[in-house]
Amino acid sequence: MNFCSHCGAPVVTRIPPGDHLPRHVCDNCGSIHYQNPKVVVGALAVWEDRILMCRRAIEPRHGFWTLPAGFMENNESTPEGACRETLEEAGARISLEGMFSYVDIPRISQIHIIYRARLLDLNFAAGEESLEVKLVDESEIPWEHIAFHSIEFTLRRFLEDRKRGHFGLHTTRLEPRSYS
Amino acid sequence: MNFCSHCGAPVVTRIPPGDHLPRHVCDNCGSIHYQNPKVVVGALAVWEDRILMCRRAIEPRHGFWTLPAGFMENNESTPEGACRETLEEAGARISLEGMFSYVDIPRISQIHIIYRARLLDLNFAAGEESLEVKLVDESEIPWEHIAFHSIEFTLRRFLEDRKRGHFGLHTTRLEPRSYS
Repeated sequence: MNFCSHCGAPVVTRIPPGDHLPRHVCDNCGSIHYQNPKVVVGALAVWEDRILMCRRAIEPRHGFWTLPAGFMENNESTPEGACRETLEEAGARISLEGMFSYVDIPRISQIHIIYRARLLDLNFAAGEESLEVKLVDESEIPWEHIAFHSIEFTLRRFLEDRKRGHFGLHTTRLEPRSYS
Repeated sequence: MNFCSHCGAPVVTRIPPGDHLPRHVCDNCGSIHYQNPKVVVGALAVWEDRILMCRRAIEPRHGFWTLPAGFMENNESTPEGACRETLEEAGARISLEGMFSYVDIPRISQIHIIYRARLLDLNFAAGEESLEVKLVDESEIPWEHIAFHSIEFTLRRFLEDRKRGHFGLHTTRLEPRSYS
């Protein structure tokens, strides 16, 4: 951030009075521009025993496999965001079944939240951000080609919970997967 | 947002190619400025049967009661944010015991997340954003003077769960309390 988005004057980086962290501050109009973590929301949707996965058509991690997920928008709820992203990336309609994983990735100021869900029908298709979308059973999960650490975490906890016959909420803190 | 925070040129509001929502776009440098929901994180901390509550010294809802909570910062995890806010607003050191409430408030693009926690000692004191901080038992909760809808939701679910002897994760979607 170089300029004030309110008045267009250059901003400086300074700790405002009563604050404890440096912020982008505008000395012209007095605006303080805070920056906060972003929420990525998605779904682990199943049809019988199989999981809906997408192969990414965009960077980062072009060509790698993921669950449908993306940045939450203003004026939507977290469940609405999970359904919207699943529709956009996988062309799939789902019914949510509860929050399943909550992953903090502080190094990149992101939170990844994945819901368990059921596919409502088999009429899915790759959206603009996906190369392909398919249902995979446990033996077909492409473990060597998963796009993000949070998605691998979610898939492993899901398979464990399914074996136990009980699904919980799984929270953790992860480092981002290095983008080589 | 009126000006590009990257280059200082005026921004326009337009749906970028491949997108589906209007964004603030800079035709000078090509930047697209996304806006996303913000996460507010805090703690319901107890000492024996009593709950740590703060009376707000700032707007909105100056003078009303709340749990220690505030906007999550970049480069921290959600649990770290809950502990930091509790230390800043209530001068209190806590040990977290799990995510307890997750409240979507899409009309103001906020998510409020409250952890259950235990106070580690009784050396708490009002921070700059609090008029007073105290431990209240169930009969002392100032229901008519609670600052936010999400905090009332969290307190009511906590008391119910404590009675049942089992704490779950409580998710909901709320409207913001009107600031009269």
